[in-house]
Amino acid sequence: MQQIIKSDNIIEDIEKAVRSINYDKLYLLTDQNTVINCYPLIEKSRIIQEAVNISIPADDTNKTVENLCKVWRVLTEKGATRHSLLINLGGGMVTDLGGFAAATFKRGIKYINIPTTLLGAVDAAVGGKTGINFEGYKNEIGSFYPADYVIISTDFFHSLGHKGILSGYAEMIKHALIHSEADLQEILSFPLNDIDYSRLNELVFRSVGIKREIVEKDPFEKNIRKALNLGHTTAHAFESFAISKSSPILHGYAVAWGIIVELYLSHRLCGFPKDKLQETVRFIQQNYGAFDITCDNYEQLYEITGHDKKNQGGIINFTLLSDTGTVQIDQTADKELFFEALDFYRDSVGL
Amino acid sequence: MQQIIKSDNIIEDIEKAVRSINYDKLYLLTDQNTVINCYPLIEKSRIIQEAVNISIPADDTNKTVENLCKVWRVLTEKGATRHSLLINLGGGMVTDLGGFAAATFKRGIKYINIPTTLLGAVDAAVGGKTGINFEGYKNEIGSFYPADYVIISTDFFHSLGHKGILSGYAEMIKHALIHSEADLQEILSFPLNDIDYSRLNELVFRSVGIKREIVEKDPFEKNIRKALNLGHTTAHAFESFAISKSSPILHGYAVAWGIIVELYLSHRLCGFPKDKLQETVRFIQQNYGAFDITCDNYEQLYEITGHDKKNQGGIINFTLLSDTGTVQIDQTADKELFFEALDFYRDSVGL
Repeated sequence: MQQIIKSDNIIEDIEKAVRSINYDKLYLLTDQNTVINCYPLIEKSRIIQEAVNISIPADDTNKTVENLCKVWRVLTEKGATRHSLLINLGGGMVTDLGGFAAATFKRGIKYINIPTTLLGAVDAAVGGKTGINFEGYKNEIGSFYPADYVIISTDFFHSLGHKGILSGYAEMIKHALIHSEADLQEILSFPLNDIDYSRLNELVFRSVGIKREIVEKDPFEKNIRKALNLGHTTAHAFESFAISKSSPILHGYAVAWGIIVELYLSHRLCGFPKDKLQETVRFIQQNYGAFDITCDNYEQLYEITGHDKKNQGGIINFTLLSDTGTVQIDQTADKELFFEALDFYRDSVGL
Repeated sequence: MQQIIKSDNIIEDIEKAVRSINYDKLYLLTDQNTVINCYPLIEKSRIIQEAVNISIPADDTNKTVENLCKVWRVLTEKGATRHSLLINLGGGMVTDLGGFAAATFKRGIKYINIPTTLLGAVDAAVGGKTGINFEGYKNEIGSFYPADYVIISTDFFHSLGHKGILSGYAEMIKHALIHSEADLQEILSFPLNDIDYSRLNELVFRSVGIKREIVEKDPFEKNIRKALNLGHTTAHAFESFAISKSSPILHGYAVAWGIIVELYLSHRLCGFPKDKLQETVRFIQQNYGAFDITCDNYEQLYEITGHDKKNQGGIINFTLLSDTGTVQIDQTADKELFFEALDFYRDSVGL
């Protein structure tokens, strides 16, 4: 399984990880943002200086087969062998696409993820899911192929801005909810308006540890890995709906709002305690504000969930909780209850 | 591990395999040849009739990223889910590309290989290596992802012609050599000029069993799977050389001639018995004729081996034998000895 490094000295930790791997040639993948904002933090490393650089356009719309081919092509043209090593420096887009390139170049080479966003660190970089978007579908093409190392440093997160931090933090709320009450209390009491980055690094590492523990039990998402889908059925519907209105929302925000809906379903279907529901909802409402929907949008949102790849034959699948740390996978809600949960969401966020 | 079916009733065996898999939608990949020559042998099956058909251009030059995208696109457009099933009906080109499409569509769906060439049956269809060519390099992109079933029927081989049979048979000689003297004797005594297809089916199944046994021990080719490379370092050099002269040769023929060179190296470096060397060489010479090289070509052939992905830093890596069934991986020969082996090859085939 992959090694996850909580780094206090990014250059030293990269060099240690790279040196521990037996490789012939090193390649570094960045996107047009990370090459400007993140590369300078590691460029003093001799090892990094010797790497062949590959850079692709930034953001999720560029997680395409064309950019995948670009990475494959540079690896081929610059003499990469099956013993070469790839470092992915970037957010989820770079670690997903770069991971998939590594998974498939000469049937698989080793790679290291250095997530440069909080969302990337707690979500995409860990757990071995790699892939690209295809024909308008997210992560339609990909494979399970874990990085050898994931090196996490909050040095990269300083430039993210408040929204970037919040987007990643939503996945940390999710991890805490599925793991334990103690984790939840820690996450809900962290002051997001005045961030202590060293404390954040602790929380991130803890959060990633929860994800790794689950992935190790079920790497190919046959059962318990579905715990990580808490909040996500609704989040994907919100994201698709927002795209259809030409005003896309950040994934982490969608997850936060999705958690409100799905904790309500958890309460109604699995007896999730009301006080914990209210406490979490309050934290989300205070920090994430509201995603604007009316009851006229409910039918469309319900329709969208039917296209989610986790749902088959018109039944909507949810991962719910009966308590903090007690996951109930493969739960289903009918249309009426889903609409009731959307009502609850609107009330909670003041719509 | 994958199940390998020796089929005496192809429709019945396909239906049995398909029914044993829990899937929602079925897809059938063919190429422009197999859709004409092989599909008619299975089209009476109700299950096959219900499959969504995908057809791509034939032959190895079409094992491209463009045709891979075509398969991905049809799967996407025709509503394939992660629970869908793909059947690959074709030679190595179709099973390699289709296997890779299955490996990567929604991070992996189940698939069945039905090899329609002898070479495909004894080589590409079994063992989980999937892939496409890229930027002029064979199998540059791919993954290890075994089919759930490989269904082998000689019904498809009747239309192959003598050269098609011989091309596949070379891999069977290789499997026999690396497995046992008894297997070798059986293979060398089979009358290739008057083929008993039912007996051939037995030999093919036995041969595939040898490959499977090795692959199971070492699926990712870290050590003993290299046994399957016997003859192939030289074969790849012969193939590349032939392409450079614009007169490509069949892979299996190249393997047969490569076995002559590498059994000689086995004799010189590992003490492979001279009588077994001569017996095998005679069989190959009688059935495969000669690939025309002169001593003026030796330097170029030596150069080409340096580009093989199994070779690093100028050292040529061979898999050799100290006896039938006794494999010596990671053997190396210097230029002088390689030239001596090429001399032996030319003498053996009467050049």
